[in-house]
Amino acid sequence: MRIGILGGGQLGRMIALAGYPLGTRCTVLDPAADPCAGQVCGHVRGEFDQDFRAMYELAQVSDVVTYEFENVPVESARWLAERVPVFPPPRALEVSQDRLVEKSFFRDLGIPTPPFVAVDSLGDFEAALREIGMPAVLKTRRFGYDGKGQVVIRNRVEADAAWSRLGGRPLILEGFVSFDRELSILAVRSRTGEIVCYPLIENAHRDGILHRSLAPASGTGEELTERAQEHAVHVLTELDYVGVLTIEWFQDGPRLLANEMAPRVHNSGHWTIEGAQTSQFENHVRAICGLPLGSPEAVGWSAMYNFIGSVLPTAEVLSRPAAHLHLYGKSDRPGRKVGHVTLRAGSLDDLAEKLPEWDRAFERRG
Amino acid sequence: MRIGILGGGQLGRMIALAGYPLGTRCTVLDPAADPCAGQVCGHVRGEFDQDFRAMYELAQVSDVVTYEFENVPVESARWLAERVPVFPPPRALEVSQDRLVEKSFFRDLGIPTPPFVAVDSLGDFEAALREIGMPAVLKTRRFGYDGKGQVVIRNRVEADAAWSRLGGRPLILEGFVSFDRELSILAVRSRTGEIVCYPLIENAHRDGILHRSLAPASGTGEELTERAQEHAVHVLTELDYVGVLTIEWFQDGPRLLANEMAPRVHNSGHWTIEGAQTSQFENHVRAICGLPLGSPEAVGWSAMYNFIGSVLPTAEVLSRPAAHLHLYGKSDRPGRKVGHVTLRAGSLDDLAEKLPEWDRAFERRG
Repeated sequence: MRIGILGGGQLGRMIALAGYPLGTRCTVLDPAADPCAGQVCGHVRGEFDQDFRAMYELAQVSDVVTYEFENVPVESARWLAERVPVFPPPRALEVSQDRLVEKSFFRDLGIPTPPFVAVDSLGDFEAALREIGMPAVLKTRRFGYDGKGQVVIRNRVEADAAWSRLGGRPLILEGFVSFDRELSILAVRSRTGEIVCYPLIENAHRDGILHRSLAPASGTGEELTERAQEHAVHVLTELDYVGVLTIEWFQDGPRLLANEMAPRVHNSGHWTIEGAQTSQFENHVRAICGLPLGSPEAVGWSAMYNFIGSVLPTAEVLSRPAAHLHLYGKSDRPGRKVGHVTLRAGSLDDLAEKLPEWDRAFERRG
Repeated sequence: MRIGILGGGQLGRMIALAGYPLGTRCTVLDPAADPCAGQVCGHVRGEFDQDFRAMYELAQVSDVVTYEFENVPVESARWLAERVPVFPPPRALEVSQDRLVEKSFFRDLGIPTPPFVAVDSLGDFEAALREIGMPAVLKTRRFGYDGKGQVVIRNRVEADAAWSRLGGRPLILEGFVSFDRELSILAVRSRTGEIVCYPLIENAHRDGILHRSLAPASGTGEELTERAQEHAVHVLTELDYVGVLTIEWFQDGPRLLANEMAPRVHNSGHWTIEGAQTSQFENHVRAICGLPLGSPEAVGWSAMYNFIGSVLPTAEVLSRPAAHLHLYGKSDRPGRKVGHVTLRAGSLDDLAEKLPEWDRAFERRG
C-alpha cells in the first residue's frame, strides 16, 4: 500500500517510519526543500493550495492519502478525494478548522463544551461579553494552534486590548474554564468501521505548547475514561471518520469539557510508540489501509517530554534509564518542536518516583 | 551521525529504521539493484569484495561503518577501517567466519563447547571420528549458515556419505550434542566500554532455519543466565568488541555449550523491538555511535515467529491481539526470511496460553 501524506513534518515522518514494518511506502507533499519526513520517505515538493501539479503527482504515487496537520485546505482534500481515497474525510477538516463549527458540532452531539458565542463585530463582542461574562477567552475561529490567535480577558481593559488585537476577523468568545487539568484522548476508526480508544492522557503546556504528557492519566477513574471514549466514538461515527482522532478536554472536577479536536495523530499520543501495545502512528496506518486495528492498551506508565527549540544533548538524554529519544531531523529554532523523549516505567509508583528528576532536566534552560 | 552498513537485507533495514529517532542516517552497500534496506535509507550498489570504488563511496558518506552479516570479507572491513571507524572490529569477523577459529577462541576463554577436531584430509577425518565418536557432525569451517554446510553422522555409511559431500574443503568434526534446547544471548558493548546483556532466548529451528524465539527463555534460572552473560562479556572484552554480539548455545541440563557466535544483530533478537526496553537495533546504533546504551530489560514476555518463504495474509496476522508485524519489503522465495511477527504478553501464563494457537497458525502451510 502506498500512502500519500499532506505535510512533511515530524508527524508525517513518524507515520512513514511506522508504516514500513506493515509493508507501506509513504510520500509526503510539502513546500519545504528538505522537510524532515522527506529524510525517511518520498517527497513531492509543492504547495497545499491550488498546486494541482503537485497534488496530481502525489495522487499518482498513492493508494490512499492522509494528512498530518489540520490546516490543509478543504478544497485540496476534496480535489484529491476525487482521485484517490482521502482519510480522515475532508468533512473532519472542515469541522476542526473553525472553532465555531467545531464547538457547535460538539454541542449538537451532546458533548459538553465551555460556553461560546460567535463574534463577527464589535456589537457581537459586547453582547458576547455580557452573555459569557469574564474571565473569557477571545479566539480567532481559524488557524489557531499552540496557543496562537487567542487572548484571555479578565477585565474591561483587557477586553479592549483583545478587540484591538483580534477584532475584524471571524472570532469566537469562550467562557474561561478554571480547569483542574487538561486531558486528551486518541481514538481510531478503520475503513472497516472497527474502533479502538487509547486511555486518557494528562497534558501540561508551557507558553501554549505541549510540554509533558502522562499516560495513562492517573486518577481519572473508569467513569471519566468511559465518558471520554463514548464521546470520541460518537464523533468518529458521526463523521464516518477513518484514522486517528484526538479530542482535547478540560477536566473540572467530575466535568469533562471538550476544548478542541484534531483530525490526525497528535503530539499528546507520542508516548504510544513505547507506552502502548500499538502506536498511534501504526494504528493510523492500519486504519487508513483498512487493516485490523492493534490493541491501544498501555504497557506500563509513560511520560513524554517535548523538546522545544532545541534538544538536550543526546548522550545526556540516553544516559537516563528507560529514556526513549525521538529526534525529528529538524534544525533548532525557538518555539519549534524538534524532538521528544518518552520515559516508560513498569508501575505508576516507579514513574512518579522518577518524574521530579525528569521535570528538572526538562526545565527551560538559561 | 552517518552510518554505513555492509549488506542491505532486513537487518540493515531494521538498523536504519531504529537509527532515525536517534538522529542517524544510514547508507547500505549491497550488490542487489533493490535491496530491502535500500527502501528505507541510502544505497550504494557494489560488491563486498574488491569493489574499492563502492567501498570508497560508502566511506565518504559514513562517520562509522558496520555490517549486517558475518561473511563480509575481512580484507574489505580492514580496508574500510583505514578510512573510517568499523564496528564490530574486523577481528570479530575473522573469529566468527571460521568454525575452527571460533571454537578454539571459545575454548581459550574457558567457554565450554562441544568436542571438536580440525579435519583437513581423509586421514584427519578417520582420526577425528575415532576421537569424537558417533554421532558427530561434519561441518565446513567457512560460509555455513541456516544449517547449510553440515551433515550429521550416526554410522559408518553416513560417515562415508558425509565425506563424499564435504571432503576436500577445510572441515571440522564436532561431537553431536543431545541438547534439551537451543538458547541464545545478545550482549552489547559501546565504544565507551559500557556493556549490557539481554536475557537468554529460547530458539526453535525448522530445516535449520530459526522458526520461533521465546524471550525471556523460561526456566533458565539466574545461575544459567548469569553464566551465559559472563561468557558473553568475556568475549566482548577479549575482542575489544563494539556493537551487538550474539552467542548461540546448546543447553544440556545444567550445561551450556557454545555453538557459534554472530558479530551482529540477530534474528533471535527481533523480539526486542517490542519486548525489551531498548531494541537490539537501537542498542547497536547507540554502541557504534558511542552513545549510552539503553536498558536491555524485557517488557513482558514475547514470542517471535519468522515468515519463511512467504507471509501470512497481513490482515490475518494483524487481527490477532498484540501481534506486531514486520515485513521486510522482499519478494517471496522458498527458504527466504521475508518477515516476522512478535506477540508480546503481560505475563508468562498469558503467553503460554496463546502459544498453541499461534503455533498452529504458523504451521507450515500446504
